[in-house]
Amino acid sequence: MTTATFNAAQDDLVYVEDLLTALKAVDLPLLGDMLSHVLEASGKRLRPVMALLAARVNEYDMDAAVSFAAACELLHTATLVHDDVIDNAATRRRKPTANVLFRNSTSVMMGDYMFAHAAELVTRTGNLRVIKLFSRTLLSMAYGEVYQDMTAYAYGQTLNDYFKRIGGKTASLFATATEGGAVLSQASEPVIQGLRSYGYNLGMAFQVVDDVLDYTGDESSMGKPVGGDLMAGTMTLPAILLVEQYPDNNPVQRYFSGKNKAQSLREAIAMIRESDICDRSMKIAMDFRDRALEGLAGVDSKEVREALEEIAGYVLSRRT
Amino acid sequence: MTTATFNAAQDDLVYVEDLLTALKAVDLPLLGDMLSHVLEASGKRLRPVMALLAARVNEYDMDAAVSFAAACELLHTATLVHDDVIDNAATRRRKPTANVLFRNSTSVMMGDYMFAHAAELVTRTGNLRVIKLFSRTLLSMAYGEVYQDMTAYAYGQTLNDYFKRIGGKTASLFATATEGGAVLSQASEPVIQGLRSYGYNLGMAFQVVDDVLDYTGDESSMGKPVGGDLMAGTMTLPAILLVEQYPDNNPVQRYFSGKNKAQSLREAIAMIRESDICDRSMKIAMDFRDRALEGLAGVDSKEVREALEEIAGYVLSRRT
Repeated sequence: MTTATFNAAQDDLVYVEDLLTALKAVDLPLLGDMLSHVLEASGKRLRPVMALLAARVNEYDMDAAVSFAAACELLHTATLVHDDVIDNAATRRRKPTANVLFRNSTSVMMGDYMFAHAAELVTRTGNLRVIKLFSRTLLSMAYGEVYQDMTAYAYGQTLNDYFKRIGGKTASLFATATEGGAVLSQASEPVIQGLRSYGYNLGMAFQVVDDVLDYTGDESSMGKPVGGDLMAGTMTLPAILLVEQYPDNNPVQRYFSGKNKAQSLREAIAMIRESDICDRSMKIAMDFRDRALEGLAGVDSKEVREALEEIAGYVLSRRT
Repeated sequence: MTTATFNAAQDDLVYVEDLLTALKAVDLPLLGDMLSHVLEASGKRLRPVMALLAARVNEYDMDAAVSFAAACELLHTATLVHDDVIDNAATRRRKPTANVLFRNSTSVMMGDYMFAHAAELVTRTGNLRVIKLFSRTLLSMAYGEVYQDMTAYAYGQTLNDYFKRIGGKTASLFATATEGGAVLSQASEPVIQGLRSYGYNLGMAFQVVDDVLDYTGDESSMGKPVGGDLMAGTMTLPAILLVEQYPDNNPVQRYFSGKNKAQSLREAIAMIRESDICDRSMKIAMDFRDRALEGLAGVDSKEVREALEEIAGYVLSRRT
């Protein structure tokens, strides 16, 4: 059952969309078209909703909260645009990626333009703590991306390497969305830290689920090929667990060493899908979700707490 | 003759270098190497010196000024790294570009990482006005870059298109360096605006000189091919003046329409080098420099004024 506060945050998303739409109204029609393509409302807008909910935990300053929520979504989308250049991805959310429709170079610039707008939006909050938080997040995300690229096709990655990487790449922005929202609402320090923990751990759960879906998802509903991460040389949780379980001569190792690549990839995907590895991975995601929910203990507003619990439920149950 | 204040600002550059060096000390050795390559002290550090000088116009807050100066240099370098990906440039400052030494994708990420650091450095000033200024500059520069890309191989560009483009791409950061420095030193509003005008107009002069050197420079001392801008389809001041002078059937037009490209390019370069176009372009650069110097009228400190005049002289006389 959806709570009233959840609906209120959803309603405020309209203002977030207004800010994103304003971005497209530039005097270069081609740039406007490209921005429309990447900002199309098909995303789940999870980060801005979380920011808007956290911003209601005490005093709700709508203007600041909406600017901040839009900045979070824009930072996320800019990262996706650059990721797709880096990964040479062909589809995202079932649509051709920007770098396929436009030139790679154009995608680089468009990503920069969106980063710049995100930075400008966050300054509109006028809150120095939130601005600093946002800039450090940019740094964590960029570091996570570099780290992922530099460890691509590196076989011996541990669970800790993986958690560090997705912490920077994904969870840092979730943590910032809820921490920043709480700071803007002038919540007490324990509530701010609790909401940061909620965001961080839910971000970790989100990425683990994402990485499981990469193996178990349905190609047509996901809109991208099954096993795409492994294909690109990225060791995510299921592949790491497979290597842990079969340390000698397993198909991931064979794939990384370039032996019968197509067959090794198929074998690895099949072993992951047919074993209990996905269940064990989902168990790890649930542990992160539980830790996320613990962060809500200090939240007085039952409405906000229930809405954030609802989001946690969604993150664990999503199929695409 | 170099003034004492100019020397003092040069001395403080050491602290700027310290901040840039700290950036390279990351736990990914390859990333550290790449950052060393692009941040090597072979650049002129013009923007940080201008920021440091403007920051001495009233009260000098060294910590804030140094962070801000480093942020300006880092933003500039990050832009160069992405530019080289976009232009597919092979050399810069006589060295192979990052995208040649590393993969394009790695350069994209490294640029993002540097943007993120620049944003973090500017938040260290704790000055909301300077942070906002910086984020708007990021936006102007990104827009200028998109604009340049989207108008590449567009023949009918006017002087105004050109000035708008270099205003965003280059002059905006010069303007921010001096305006931001002045704001940090708590100068009066007229002095801040005067220093902004100095930075903006000197940035315009700098880019015009750059664009002239692209035609007149010596290939070995410049470290890049003569006529490289035109080759990449970018209409800069000399090419625009050539088209204005010979509106019908000129080699720039032939090059853009793909007719005998190699020969048309050679002809265009020769016509520009052998005509008075470079002198006329330099005259425009001098006009910008004169407007820049007018901005210094309200600066009480003779020392700061003379140092900034010295920089203006350097910008006009440089040969690489």
